[in-house]
Amino acid sequence: MVFSLLWSLYFKEDPLPLLDAMLFSIALGSVLVLFGEKGVEFTPKEGFGIVAFGWLGAAALGGLPYYFGGVFPRYVDCFFEAMSGFTTTGASVLTDIEVVPKGLLFWRDFTHWLGGMGIIVLSLAILPALGVGGMQLFKAEVPGPIPEKLKPRMRETAKLLWGVYFLVSALETLLLYLGGMSFYESLCHTFGTVATGGFSPLNKSIGQYHNLYFEVVIMVFMFIAGANFSLHYRALKGDWKCFFRDEEFKFYTGFVLVGIFLVTLCLYLSGNYKTISSSLRYASFQVISILTTTGYVTADYFWWHPFAKYFLLVLMFIGGCAGSTGGAIKHVRIIVLFKVFKRELYRLIHPEAVISIKLNGKSLSQNVVSSVVNFFMIYMIIFVIASLIIAALGEDIITSIASVAATLGNIGPGLGKVGPAENYAFHTPLAKWVLSFCMAAGRLELYAILLIFLPETYRR
Amino acid sequence: MVFSLLWSLYFKEDPLPLLDAMLFSIALGSVLVLFGEKGVEFTPKEGFGIVAFGWLGAAALGGLPYYFGGVFPRYVDCFFEAMSGFTTTGASVLTDIEVVPKGLLFWRDFTHWLGGMGIIVLSLAILPALGVGGMQLFKAEVPGPIPEKLKPRMRETAKLLWGVYFLVSALETLLLYLGGMSFYESLCHTFGTVATGGFSPLNKSIGQYHNLYFEVVIMVFMFIAGANFSLHYRALKGDWKCFFRDEEFKFYTGFVLVGIFLVTLCLYLSGNYKTISSSLRYASFQVISILTTTGYVTADYFWWHPFAKYFLLVLMFIGGCAGSTGGAIKHVRIIVLFKVFKRELYRLIHPEAVISIKLNGKSLSQNVVSSVVNFFMIYMIIFVIASLIIAALGEDIITSIASVAATLGNIGPGLGKVGPAENYAFHTPLAKWVLSFCMAAGRLELYAILLIFLPETYRR
Repeated sequence: MVFSLLWSLYFKEDPLPLLDAMLFSIALGSVLVLFGEKGVEFTPKEGFGIVAFGWLGAAALGGLPYYFGGVFPRYVDCFFEAMSGFTTTGASVLTDIEVVPKGLLFWRDFTHWLGGMGIIVLSLAILPALGVGGMQLFKAEVPGPIPEKLKPRMRETAKLLWGVYFLVSALETLLLYLGGMSFYESLCHTFGTVATGGFSPLNKSIGQYHNLYFEVVIMVFMFIAGANFSLHYRALKGDWKCFFRDEEFKFYTGFVLVGIFLVTLCLYLSGNYKTISSSLRYASFQVISILTTTGYVTADYFWWHPFAKYFLLVLMFIGGCAGSTGGAIKHVRIIVLFKVFKRELYRLIHPEAVISIKLNGKSLSQNVVSSVVNFFMIYMIIFVIASLIIAALGEDIITSIASVAATLGNIGPGLGKVGPAENYAFHTPLAKWVLSFCMAAGRLELYAILLIFLPETYRR
Repeated sequence: MVFSLLWSLYFKEDPLPLLDAMLFSIALGSVLVLFGEKGVEFTPKEGFGIVAFGWLGAAALGGLPYYFGGVFPRYVDCFFEAMSGFTTTGASVLTDIEVVPKGLLFWRDFTHWLGGMGIIVLSLAILPALGVGGMQLFKAEVPGPIPEKLKPRMRETAKLLWGVYFLVSALETLLLYLGGMSFYESLCHTFGTVATGGFSPLNKSIGQYHNLYFEVVIMVFMFIAGANFSLHYRALKGDWKCFFRDEEFKFYTGFVLVGIFLVTLCLYLSGNYKTISSSLRYASFQVISILTTTGYVTADYFWWHPFAKYFLLVLMFIGGCAGSTGGAIKHVRIIVLFKVFKRELYRLIHPEAVISIKLNGKSLSQNVVSSVVNFFMIYMIIFVIASLIIAALGEDIITSIASVAATLGNIGPGLGKVGPAENYAFHTPLAKWVLSFCMAAGRLELYAILLIFLPETYRR
């Protein structure tokens, strides 16, 4: 919160909300440091605990500046906004963003950036080691020395990847600043982009600028942030061709291009925009923004043809690449799902054939393949149950579906009452807790958060 | 078509449409008999071919009476209506049912009954042998002698199950007739019930009677039709307790009860109905009708609270039991999915534990478990792609989702523009072909229809 405090002082705003939150956090942290066990090797179970309670704790404390600053009257809103930040979702319960002090808005975007840092390390170092939902795939892909123990490897990997993350962030800030955006807004939008978050200090998000240069820069960096950061690391080390060898990256790029093509075609043919160029401009930004789970908007797609809207809704389930800051199911899993689909058909004709599923030329173990399909299934079960709860609280079907799809997938804006020009403020407190749970579950690849609810977890 | 012709003569209607369709079918059949190969043992691939082309052919010929009778000007509508009949879906493109000659309406309901006969045998004898989507589960469950070869076993099984099907149908017809329904309508509604079809010769379906007795009889028989017919067979042989031993039946019963409870509560609390008794009456009929994939309606649930509507939409994906005439994913697979969910969580805490998934006390092979999860995944992929196509043709998201959910799951009525008081007539011809494909794919457990599109299938 120190950096936010500095902005607060720079803009001559009341520094107390941030100071109070800092003191409270330091106090709580001191208690944990004093009374917690030290130097213990942790088991997978405790690994999940650290991940889940770490994120929940960050959101609980991260909401304090809003609470002390009187941004929201109820704590659940503060918690929601902070959870949305740290999970890089970008779903907001703020109805008027620009009246909030700039120091607090900086904190809001900074939570994205911190969350993004956490996610990269989580998905490339911690979860592969814990064996979650097929993430074992990335065990050998992580840069850094081959480890003997879990902790030293994580530390090494984290440092390298954070270096890349920092570099990408610095580059985007520079490009936005050179294009004429203020340094403050450049920083805020960079945080929202590279973390695929989507918070903006402006009421109308990126659309407020009506500036093609900003849109292109942000599109490029959303695309980068939606790709695997270990590829960026390798590229920076000189291996530029690694992108062309990586099956997930190729699929991701192809998906983006096909998606832009289809939506542009739909917007132009249905007359949503009069020219192909403006169809392309708005289609490409929205497709990249939703697919990478960023959630910045330049167009109110509420008015678009139903195919374009429904297509965006489907994108919310697909998300970014593994090892990116993007959320949802992720491309690598979608690839495996389609390969399983193909294999199932082939098997019916050739029941005796043994066909292994390959990724980047390597055969995947049956264990990993099952993990991926099971992950998809569990994702869908959580989606259905959570959206039924939202509907039970009185929301229409589209709003219920979109609210859950957009929080579970860490996108932010959805459809219906949570559309691009709307926000999550109208939801009941219970709905906000459920959606906060979805954000955390989706962000942490489901399992860490689900284990919290399992009595088995707390047995010695 | 002979029986329909008799009704046609009884009601003194023009018999030519049915006669022409009969002659055309006989002519085509003769060609196939004369030029087809005889006495060849078939491979799994050919088994799928027989199933897929058998159903498509039945729909193609079954649509002829409507075409010759001038019920629809376009053949695609005739094909859609016949496919909807044979797949026991009940989705209709008829805008005014009661103006159609009664002989043709009898044919319309009779296609349900014939389709239901086909489905029971398909799901309990053919598909388990071909190893589709976990249906191997039912290999040993089928009554009849343990077979040496595929064909004799199928024949034996078919006869036994058809006996049960006939008995159940006779009983329902009798009960409806005794309650005061005409013999003609009793037969038609029995066909629609025991096949979990949903066609009715009345414009307002079962709701037109406003008769609690009919509603209760039909509810009971929808419930029976949604359960595994091999259980009914065993019960008729004296083993009444088999229901209480069968995990799927218990889950199915529990699901129905919980569903009725939740929807009744929702309808009452939200004020959709003023009394608990009428909430219960309409909730229970609609829940059983949609869950068993029948699609008869007694209430226009368009006006219901969003939770109730969304809940019905979710039920469309679940469907009946395996070995019933019900469609969609089926309860046995849902049970396996939840057990896999539980095992995945447990595995994360105990990575070394080997936990087998059990059904009715027996461990399932990893192969069967994977088949089930993969089936779910493929079902969802087809659902998403088909509903994107419907949206691309200009329908709103709810209508697109519901049209595909209700045809792929063989329900009939959906939500939005295909709601309970509506029909499928407004869809474009292309949408009707796509939805016909969904009906066939859903009915034949996906694979048989998908294999038609695979070039691999046609290689020697």
